[in-house]
Amino acid sequence: MRRLTLALDAMGGDFGPAVTVPAALQALVSYPQLELLLVGNPAALNPLLVKTDSVLLERLTVIPAESVITSDAKPSQAIRASRGTSMRVALELIKDGRAQACVSAGNTGALMGLAKLVLKPLDGIERPALMVVLPHQKQGKTVVLDLGANVACDGAMLAQFAVMGAVMAEHIVGVTNPSVALLNIGEEETKGLDPIQQAAALLRDVPSINYIGYLEANELLTGKTDVLVCDGFVGNVTLKTMEGVIRVFLSLLKSSGESGKQGWLMQWVKRWMKRRLMRQFGQLNPDQYNGACLIGLRGTVIKSHGAANQRAFTAAIEQAMQAVERQIPERIAARLDAVLPKSD
Amino acid sequence: MRRLTLALDAMGGDFGPAVTVPAALQALVSYPQLELLLVGNPAALNPLLVKTDSVLLERLTVIPAESVITSDAKPSQAIRASRGTSMRVALELIKDGRAQACVSAGNTGALMGLAKLVLKPLDGIERPALMVVLPHQKQGKTVVLDLGANVACDGAMLAQFAVMGAVMAEHIVGVTNPSVALLNIGEEETKGLDPIQQAAALLRDVPSINYIGYLEANELLTGKTDVLVCDGFVGNVTLKTMEGVIRVFLSLLKSSGESGKQGWLMQWVKRWMKRRLMRQFGQLNPDQYNGACLIGLRGTVIKSHGAANQRAFTAAIEQAMQAVERQIPERIAARLDAVLPKSD
Repeated sequence: MRRLTLALDAMGGDFGPAVTVPAALQALVSYPQLELLLVGNPAALNPLLVKTDSVLLERLTVIPAESVITSDAKPSQAIRASRGTSMRVALELIKDGRAQACVSAGNTGALMGLAKLVLKPLDGIERPALMVVLPHQKQGKTVVLDLGANVACDGAMLAQFAVMGAVMAEHIVGVTNPSVALLNIGEEETKGLDPIQQAAALLRDVPSINYIGYLEANELLTGKTDVLVCDGFVGNVTLKTMEGVIRVFLSLLKSSGESGKQGWLMQWVKRWMKRRLMRQFGQLNPDQYNGACLIGLRGTVIKSHGAANQRAFTAAIEQAMQAVERQIPERIAARLDAVLPKSD
Repeated sequence: MRRLTLALDAMGGDFGPAVTVPAALQALVSYPQLELLLVGNPAALNPLLVKTDSVLLERLTVIPAESVITSDAKPSQAIRASRGTSMRVALELIKDGRAQACVSAGNTGALMGLAKLVLKPLDGIERPALMVVLPHQKQGKTVVLDLGANVACDGAMLAQFAVMGAVMAEHIVGVTNPSVALLNIGEEETKGLDPIQQAAALLRDVPSINYIGYLEANELLTGKTDVLVCDGFVGNVTLKTMEGVIRVFLSLLKSSGESGKQGWLMQWVKRWMKRRLMRQFGQLNPDQYNGACLIGLRGTVIKSHGAANQRAFTAAIEQAMQAVERQIPERIAARLDAVLPKSD
């Protein structure tokens, strides 16, 4: 079995080591090929490791880092003062060839900026993009990007995202000849903003991309496309709208029928049915698909939700493993090089 | 009781007169002060009216219109060839002072373009905006605009939308000193696109607007703001994302536990609980709050969902009545004039 080494920013996120350390240990138990570099303050990390089985500890190394970038720090300032922070040290472990990927639940803007600075884009890629894989109604999955790495995008960038998304759909989701759509406010060719129309023109000319046209946001979860491309502002708004609506639904479901004076049988059936629905809706629960992938760099960076719990952070670690095993950066570079003319 | 006359584009929408005529009759029964001008092909409309009580028919006039703008027509072409269409005739009835507002389920782009052309913006307004009132988690309502009337917006336009939204929240939702937020991808001042930051700077200087800053899209249904402002592209994507997610949830709920070999008691309890949940989630069902309001014009135009059923189209008629009764166009003009410097 091939060894696989990941760097974890152990101090990032709302809960820091209290979540990242147990998640790391859980991942080590589940995946014997995994080695982890836990980056952070040893005084905070070591106490959480004292009871750990020594066999497990052989695959875990604490890498000291003096400071932390806080979640509310302004990215540009945080990046300037980033030397020695757990996030930056974790990224540098990839650059130095000691880790193959990195996972952080820290400040999103700082992570994107630092990753670009430390790891550099792949040849043929102008700008990395943030991507998630969302479950859809037909039991499959849709790759959605960009989710916020690039607030404004021109047509060439959107077309590059489409190519990267197609590689992800093929190698991560496992779809042959994945369909690719641009998110727009109508399906007619004349709809939407200029960059979207320019990207459409570019993609229509790439025979190796299965470009299917524009899709509207109400198709996000219907499985009409394998890859959905948009700029980072719109992608961020779309994903957060979805998450917000799902959280409202789950909380309505949770609280539904809590008052009431029914007998025990009724109470039992209601609880049973609620559990069933929660399970069914649960696949849409943001905690279940935690981990956005920053793609287009020389190395894999996974951004976990800041508020991720242990299970969610473990899911982000698994995503990083998958990206490394499937050699995502290399495949993206190869495909993009073959497909699109370089722009500058 | 003050008479109130509305023009209905009876031919618009996916179902045309089959939905608009029964909805019109229902509204006449419910609201004795209402008079309706039913615009469309008499040969299609009259047969649906033969069984109607003659007392009701006294408040209903069929206004002949030769043609219809189809839902899939390209708006610019449709507008050029719009003379004599049911949509245009309905709008002209407002301009001529015969109707106080108009409701159409027809082609959205054509309706927005024609409304601007026929009715003209109010003094002090550059561009009309499309607005909905969404129910939120705290049992109140949030005014959201623009939803697609203006794909790209500068800061001054967003600030004008904010002022119009505040008037709507005050006079339609009934909130005193409504809070106003700009939709953005982060809450920090430095986040997002230039027009949003420019709008923020303008709104901070308007003492009569209770501007509370940026909100992210996951707050759409949480009730954190009374008015949420964004450009038409983002608003359209946000609303459609929400609708798509809600439809997935409702269909999951509907189909949940349909197979299974439980006894009749279990079956009955499950049906009872599903009905209960459907009712609870139903307030978020797009059919329930049908009708987006095109505001900023000399007259009120309500855009119904193209796929609206009778109940939904009746809801759109009720929205038009409310907008007329509350003198929305006049109030918007007055407020905007007092608050913002005119730009050109």
